[in-house]
Amino acid sequence: MRADDMIMISVDDHLVEPPDLFAGRLPAAFQDFAPRVERLANGSDVWVFNGTLIPNIGLNAVAGRPKEEYGIEPTAFDEMRPGCFDVHERIKDMNAGGVLGSMNFPSFPGFSARLFAACRDKDLALAVLRAYNDWHIEEWCGSYPGRFIPMALPVLWDAELCAEEVRRVAAKGCHSMTFTENPAALGFPSFHDPSWDPLWTALCDEHVVLSIHLGSSGSITVTAPDAPVDVMITLQPMNICSAAADLLWSRVLKNFPDIRIALSEGGTGWIPYFLDRIDRTYDMHRSWTGQDFGDKLPSEVFRQHFLTCFISDPVGVQLRHQIGIDNIAWECDYPHSDSSWPHAPEELADVVTGVPDDEVEKMTWRNASHWYSFEPFAHRPRERCTVQALRAEAAGHDVEIRSYDKGRFTRSGQGVDLGELAAKATA
Amino acid sequence: MRADDMIMISVDDHLVEPPDLFAGRLPAAFQDFAPRVERLANGSDVWVFNGTLIPNIGLNAVAGRPKEEYGIEPTAFDEMRPGCFDVHERIKDMNAGGVLGSMNFPSFPGFSARLFAACRDKDLALAVLRAYNDWHIEEWCGSYPGRFIPMALPVLWDAELCAEEVRRVAAKGCHSMTFTENPAALGFPSFHDPSWDPLWTALCDEHVVLSIHLGSSGSITVTAPDAPVDVMITLQPMNICSAAADLLWSRVLKNFPDIRIALSEGGTGWIPYFLDRIDRTYDMHRSWTGQDFGDKLPSEVFRQHFLTCFISDPVGVQLRHQIGIDNIAWECDYPHSDSSWPHAPEELADVVTGVPDDEVEKMTWRNASHWYSFEPFAHRPRERCTVQALRAEAAGHDVEIRSYDKGRFTRSGQGVDLGELAAKATA
Repeated sequence: MRADDMIMISVDDHLVEPPDLFAGRLPAAFQDFAPRVERLANGSDVWVFNGTLIPNIGLNAVAGRPKEEYGIEPTAFDEMRPGCFDVHERIKDMNAGGVLGSMNFPSFPGFSARLFAACRDKDLALAVLRAYNDWHIEEWCGSYPGRFIPMALPVLWDAELCAEEVRRVAAKGCHSMTFTENPAALGFPSFHDPSWDPLWTALCDEHVVLSIHLGSSGSITVTAPDAPVDVMITLQPMNICSAAADLLWSRVLKNFPDIRIALSEGGTGWIPYFLDRIDRTYDMHRSWTGQDFGDKLPSEVFRQHFLTCFISDPVGVQLRHQIGIDNIAWECDYPHSDSSWPHAPEELADVVTGVPDDEVEKMTWRNASHWYSFEPFAHRPRERCTVQALRAEAAGHDVEIRSYDKGRFTRSGQGVDLGELAAKATA
Repeated sequence: MRADDMIMISVDDHLVEPPDLFAGRLPAAFQDFAPRVERLANGSDVWVFNGTLIPNIGLNAVAGRPKEEYGIEPTAFDEMRPGCFDVHERIKDMNAGGVLGSMNFPSFPGFSARLFAACRDKDLALAVLRAYNDWHIEEWCGSYPGRFIPMALPVLWDAELCAEEVRRVAAKGCHSMTFTENPAALGFPSFHDPSWDPLWTALCDEHVVLSIHLGSSGSITVTAPDAPVDVMITLQPMNICSAAADLLWSRVLKNFPDIRIALSEGGTGWIPYFLDRIDRTYDMHRSWTGQDFGDKLPSEVFRQHFLTCFISDPVGVQLRHQIGIDNIAWECDYPHSDSSWPHAPEELADVVTGVPDDEVEKMTWRNASHWYSFEPFAHRPRERCTVQALRAEAAGHDVEIRSYDKGRFTRSGQGVDLGELAAKATA
């Protein structure tokens, strides 16, 4: 399929929250305690909430910048491409990149809103979380109907409230909730604890997918404090298999047959090996571990419940039928450093050379649309949804790679202290 | 290729140390402090050294037993198949399983001999370690020339002494040294610390392969204390990619171009995805991380330095050319629970259906022979090395699956406390 003719829905992008997110969205009693943006003496912008400062690290907002400016140093709004935090600019960037639809993970609250979960005033935390979800659904996604798959933050600290939030946002058309790879690692009951049952029930009732982003367990893989940063970058997407295994063997899938989970930014090339591994584990060990999937193999159970995705994964495309052609979606990862925006369509067209059109369509948009109950053509005729059509709308929009460097930060990753970084990630 | 016609060299098996291992092998001053076997009140046999008790966990000695008897409970010598600890019985089992050659990892000292490294009397520790290596090379492997790839334990606590041990055992014909996935995780300098340089130099000089077994960092992946044990079993082989990434991006490969590393029990199906990942990481990030492989891609560097292996990995066989046909070896994993002894040849023949004979031979024995400088035909004519020929020698040897259960231990894995297990593993 030609890049121009593709329809592309990305199931994993990121937004950097704009400073005015909470304006007018909290009850008066909480307004003074709302998360707010401050500029530090070193020139970086940070979110401040509940006594915690959260920088926007450089690697998380590099779209449109030269690779020499990549880094993990803190950054500021004026060092980011506006599409990171301004939805109108984002839509222009999506058009220029040929991207029809996009699901946006949060930045400063953490992928599973653990910043809010850490707040001791639970009334405040819940008010802030609901305000965030309302802003996300109404303002960010609502400004451009049919262009965003809305996704809510979870109430990590209370399964009943979390279930209630699932039902509340589903009523607004939101069918995705971000979650953590491992609640136990964050100090909450594990996936194996029945206390989460109200959440599983609500997700099944409301057809909401649990979207688990890599890195959402609050830790990064650091082999040693003096390891090159490349080790951490390489290993980041390779640890989501822990979440897949944890949920696959859990009682959750057995007791809640309609539960659906997305392994966001998890890649796909490793899945066939993983499926062989779980089937072999089942064969060798079930008689003493007591696992029982009835007449199904674990690999079949996986395909019933898990959506996987890739940015550009030649091995995953090659092995698509061993993964499950209905289980693969595409992601852009804008504006993070793994993204190939604005050239993703061309990169992907290259990788899917020789793949039948109907299979390409499943991977680029049909599976995303189906899993997330997302109907773009209800808002925009299909012929205006292709890469070519969207790019025509973006005519004149500047997508040149250019420097956003204001000279306030050092830009070498070689002095990164990974021990310190890991400590911050788990703090 | 027919199973009968295969020649099979396994680069990953395990021995359970026999109680008389150290008899007559230590100077008089150390004899009283040698590791010894004791039977506990619960009926299990443990090794005792330096105030530490090390049980033989059940899963590590299940060859020939029914799957219902698998478990992670402690076990005893009379609950194991004798081939676990008796080299003469082992050879009969190898013959019956059609296995020509075998490399045997240690049990009670830990894969990287960290039990000895933890001993404060370093003279005693070194004497014990050298006695172990001498026993392994002379008695275990030496009893049957051409049947075992000898492998030495490392001196983890001293790089100079470790280098010396490499040279000492190489002079005895030993071209493999077991090591840890991550010395930093065990409290030693990381792979990135130049203090290891004497070891890298000795390995290159003496053509000794560093054999890194999964689990050798002293930790296991436990997602939550209440997770099913199947999660831990599934994830075990999936974490060795951390060691691969750690070494790949390190200065070691750049400064010691002849270094060779085996990822023992690491599987192969994930490698093509990993190679795509490292090449993409290099492309996206090298300009700020400073990585430089000259005119090579990281994936090419990987193939120069790493040997991978599988027990039975259909995806790895399918993708063998993307991994590197010269980088794949076979392993039996006798007597651990992942092994399919004595039917491994038939299982493998099934997986390599349609693969050209010369490629099958590379995977079943040629690569193992080449990487480990192991020359079996020097001791036994090639026509006597096939599965069929070896099995003919084993005629009458009992390989029936049968119970070794003496009724002293519980056999259900469902009550396993994974938190406790993880604590023991990292203790």
